[in-house]
Amino acid sequence: MIKITLPDGSIREYEAGTSALGVAKSISEGLARKVLAASINGQVWDATRPIETDASLKLLTWDDNEAKSTFWHSTAHLMAEAVQTMFPGVKFWVGPAIDKGFYYDMDLGDRQMSEDDLVKLEKKMSELAKQNNAYERKPISKADAVQYFTEKGDEYKLDLLSNLADGEITFYTQGGFTDLCRGPHIPATGSIKAVKLTSVAGAYWKGDEKNKQLTRIYGVSFPAQKELDEYLLMLEEAKKRDHRKLGKELGIYTMDDDIGQGLPLWMPNGTIIIEELEKLAKETENAAGYKRVVTPHIAKENLYITSGHLPYYADSMFPPMEMDGTKYYLKAMNCPHHHKIFDAEQKSYKDLPYRIAEYGTCYRYEQSGELFGLMRVRCLHMNDAHIYCSKEQFAQEFRAVNDMYIKYFNIFGVDKYVMRLSLHDPKKLGQKYVDEPELWKETETMVRNVLIESNIPFVEVQDEAAFYGPKIDVQIWSAIGREFTLATNQVDFNSGNKFKLSYTNQNNAAEVPLIIHRAPLGTHERFIGFLLEHYAGKFPAWLAPLQVKVLPISDKFMDYANTILETLKKADIRVEIDDRNEKIGKKIRDTEMAKVPYMLVIGEKEMNERQVAVRRQGKGDAGVKGLDEFVADLVEEIKARRADVEEPAQA
Amino acid sequence: MIKITLPDGSIREYEAGTSALGVAKSISEGLARKVLAASINGQVWDATRPIETDASLKLLTWDDNEAKSTFWHSTAHLMAEAVQTMFPGVKFWVGPAIDKGFYYDMDLGDRQMSEDDLVKLEKKMSELAKQNNAYERKPISKADAVQYFTEKGDEYKLDLLSNLADGEITFYTQGGFTDLCRGPHIPATGSIKAVKLTSVAGAYWKGDEKNKQLTRIYGVSFPAQKELDEYLLMLEEAKKRDHRKLGKELGIYTMDDDIGQGLPLWMPNGTIIIEELEKLAKETENAAGYKRVVTPHIAKENLYITSGHLPYYADSMFPPMEMDGTKYYLKAMNCPHHHKIFDAEQKSYKDLPYRIAEYGTCYRYEQSGELFGLMRVRCLHMNDAHIYCSKEQFAQEFRAVNDMYIKYFNIFGVDKYVMRLSLHDPKKLGQKYVDEPELWKETETMVRNVLIESNIPFVEVQDEAAFYGPKIDVQIWSAIGREFTLATNQVDFNSGNKFKLSYTNQNNAAEVPLIIHRAPLGTHERFIGFLLEHYAGKFPAWLAPLQVKVLPISDKFMDYANTILETLKKADIRVEIDDRNEKIGKKIRDTEMAKVPYMLVIGEKEMNERQVAVRRQGKGDAGVKGLDEFVADLVEEIKARRADVEEPAQA
Repeated sequence: MIKITLPDGSIREYEAGTSALGVAKSISEGLARKVLAASINGQVWDATRPIETDASLKLLTWDDNEAKSTFWHSTAHLMAEAVQTMFPGVKFWVGPAIDKGFYYDMDLGDRQMSEDDLVKLEKKMSELAKQNNAYERKPISKADAVQYFTEKGDEYKLDLLSNLADGEITFYTQGGFTDLCRGPHIPATGSIKAVKLTSVAGAYWKGDEKNKQLTRIYGVSFPAQKELDEYLLMLEEAKKRDHRKLGKELGIYTMDDDIGQGLPLWMPNGTIIIEELEKLAKETENAAGYKRVVTPHIAKENLYITSGHLPYYADSMFPPMEMDGTKYYLKAMNCPHHHKIFDAEQKSYKDLPYRIAEYGTCYRYEQSGELFGLMRVRCLHMNDAHIYCSKEQFAQEFRAVNDMYIKYFNIFGVDKYVMRLSLHDPKKLGQKYVDEPELWKETETMVRNVLIESNIPFVEVQDEAAFYGPKIDVQIWSAIGREFTLATNQVDFNSGNKFKLSYTNQNNAAEVPLIIHRAPLGTHERFIGFLLEHYAGKFPAWLAPLQVKVLPISDKFMDYANTILETLKKADIRVEIDDRNEKIGKKIRDTEMAKVPYMLVIGEKEMNERQVAVRRQGKGDAGVKGLDEFVADLVEEIKARRADVEEPAQA
Repeated sequence: MIKITLPDGSIREYEAGTSALGVAKSISEGLARKVLAASINGQVWDATRPIETDASLKLLTWDDNEAKSTFWHSTAHLMAEAVQTMFPGVKFWVGPAIDKGFYYDMDLGDRQMSEDDLVKLEKKMSELAKQNNAYERKPISKADAVQYFTEKGDEYKLDLLSNLADGEITFYTQGGFTDLCRGPHIPATGSIKAVKLTSVAGAYWKGDEKNKQLTRIYGVSFPAQKELDEYLLMLEEAKKRDHRKLGKELGIYTMDDDIGQGLPLWMPNGTIIIEELEKLAKETENAAGYKRVVTPHIAKENLYITSGHLPYYADSMFPPMEMDGTKYYLKAMNCPHHHKIFDAEQKSYKDLPYRIAEYGTCYRYEQSGELFGLMRVRCLHMNDAHIYCSKEQFAQEFRAVNDMYIKYFNIFGVDKYVMRLSLHDPKKLGQKYVDEPELWKETETMVRNVLIESNIPFVEVQDEAAFYGPKIDVQIWSAIGREFTLATNQVDFNSGNKFKLSYTNQNNAAEVPLIIHRAPLGTHERFIGFLLEHYAGKFPAWLAPLQVKVLPISDKFMDYANTILETLKKADIRVEIDDRNEKIGKKIRDTEMAKVPYMLVIGEKEMNERQVAVRRQGKGDAGVKGLDEFVADLVEEIKARRADVEEPAQA
């Protein structure tokens, strides 16, 4: 008998040679049907693979990322099987799971894969899936493996084999298809209920353009048709909400070849959003006891040698400017500058926590191929701040930072978020991690406890901390369910030493402060990119570049329209008049297209009674109101930063 | 008889050989006593020099900068005469007037000039001045001049002579001293009523450290003792108001060797001032119809080739960063980025004037020896904006810019200012100036007319315009009478062409816009440096980093002090409590030193009656007020941005 430890800590006994699926069945048949793979002692395995010794076990279902990857990788094998039936003689390179779905690279010889072929392939895959063939794992000797692919005539697999050692090679077979593969796979093809092959592209073998170009087929699959439908709808919606498209249409930002790639120019409308976000950040940080600072965008090489960014981070920085016999760098982060401000004046325990904030603009080098709209840029306006505190103050400070996140999530209607807590590996102290075993334990425990107490959803990841302390990545999901990495918090018990920062404690002794790096609103670039998608460009009134458009039915009402304009301006509302000589229907349509939250239609009745006929963007007629009532309501809405996030239409 | 044209256009006839002084005497003896020099046909002459032909003439008195220079240069000669009596055998190099005063470089042999010697020299000069010796001009042949200084044994003057052509050499003599000099000079030494020799320094001959080190004596002089006293008081006051000293004491900014010279780090208190200034600018610009933009701090080389900054301005820019096979530069100005924003969307006449503003941060290379506190830096946060308009709109737009200046001058209590209008030289069209003779005439006339109509004091300067249009430098004087160059406005009818900017005019044709470059608040660096001196660090409430300090007389009143704190915070007032266990006298003194505008002293009576005993910084007790009345008054003071500028004590 072997002992299987489940995630809740309970231990069950089984015959040696049982499998994760066996364990699942012993618990419930319903559960077993959902199991796609298993984590055995922290490694992902086939759910059907025999377990011969004591082990910890976690069953993986569609809700787990590892199960999704396994599912998609198995679908790649299923696609290969279908391709092989339709294109005999095809040779295969590799077919991994990716972020969302999978691909397989193949050599079709002289043949082409058409859009029609993709449809046929999908159909074939569906047939094969219904056969519910098991994915069978088989360890094989290198000699036998080489013989198999030599007979098949697949020089790509032989190339892969040449880099593998005898004894670590496995084959997987489902139905009529056998592949060289280290696995794992799902139990059988029957779980694959819905497949969409999304595109075909050329891909050089091994990514080298001197090599032959292979055919790459991308696809995605799901355990239920409904999920595929939802996914396709989300893709369609994401296309409509593409921040690059909306960014141009709404005059948010522009790029220019003479300025450079990845360097957005913020147009007047985008700048209004930037200023509203900064206003929110300043109000929030001011209330939370932060002070503000302004630091230059450059510094001498020496600063980054002290911080440790040079030479290790040099590839992510812009190249230096040589001047006066020294090298100057554009800053890629604000921390060293802030440390210098902490250090500029003598500090005592009474000055702590010392919190300094700056929307600092950093420059990072990204390969030009990596640049993408506002999401991957070279210029980052960062909602940065650093908190210098004592160990005793840490938990409270960290909790306050989390509270700030939650406040922002509420304001922006972010319902789904998770914090990813990256921990150190004690075996790598002094190498990958600063050698402070006690501080690591203490701070990790403090961070974990705060997250638990604050009821914040989080996952823990081993061995991915920063050099100087635990790291918390914040993931959020947009209204259409796409995931974004918003920000990173870091706990830092090393930079204080490096920069020789200290404060006088209550015993009149010098002590090094702990530092929290935090940036809840991330960068303007990524956050505004996210908001464009999240709101589909229909910004809530407080963020909308233009908040109100006054639409007089005819020229007769221009005087009253101007009265409205002046009244609204006095209340700091961003307002314009549509004074074109156009029909009211066209004025409304154009204003709807421009995504202005409020339209005020003005005719005889409204003028005579100092009223406005209100239309809400996307929602039509909202009734007639007194002008002053409308202003008061809107001022209140803006002040409260109220937002309705528009969900995509249901599938 | 010759005809003399006076500045008012009137023409008077005189015998040939009269002098400016003669003309002055013919008008009034009082006037003649004030005349120090004269401008004859645009050249500065001795007031006593005979005029032989028709000429235009302007009498120069102490109020004219050219007269001051002449006065100080004559004082240098007077000092040389005094030195010669005290240090026989001394040899002289050059003795020019400078910005404020004069110096003379001399070779004293092995002798040293002590502080005591300076006092003796001053006394000697005073004696010599009282002799009221005339400065006598005498043209001399090169041979005679060489003979004179050979006999005198002064190799420095011989060196000067070697570079002069025969026929252009003059000597000037006063009392027992004769110098090689091209003049001009004041009529006689008697006008020099007050002299202060300020310092002695070493100066290498011809500025080359391989040469012998000469002795340089600096001094300043005035036509009345009272003016010298005022000047010395101003110097003393300027020392107290030194922005570098105050900047450190008040926590405004700091510099750090690891960041780099000329790159201020703005501390929390300085950042509050920055944010208040930006708030003012944004409110003002918003009301004036500007839109805001945000642009990156770098751009590709090509942008600056288009703008014409490269290669001509390269020495004032930071060196390039080579990346992806191209060169990127830190921006030294915001204009090209703004032009790109103008160009990003199609424009019609309805979009004009298009005004875009940005507190853009620019980087300029200054020699490290030129750097000076906040006054000469390498990082500039500029109150920048560009107005794109049609020719018809120009005058109104330019007038609006000037109105903005006047508004700011009022807010900051700047009583003395002058605009320096730099014009083109028609002879240099197509070389130094863009070849648009009509546009030059038109815009220069428009600018001049607006300045006249707006009643703005201005002077005109020939041949100092920018390449692309007339330039207006704005000079302001601080409360202690020191002059600062605040900002530059430029009219630009060339960049539109260079960047191929255009808009569709009313006739549906493409037209190139005129561009106004303007930055009324200059840069944060220079303006805050100016304000530190101007206010002597005692910022008006709206700008003060800390606006109110609550001083409880004892711990008993801490609860009420906290009530006050919360009440003030709710009204967005920056407030702190002095909760130290100190006597009230010390709390008041320390708060006075920290230059906090308002102190609220809190004791039994104040607590019981919800009152505050108000003290105004530098002015003492301001009476007891109800707390709510105090808050309302201060909120109003802050909103109105009221300021009392403290003048220095009278001499």
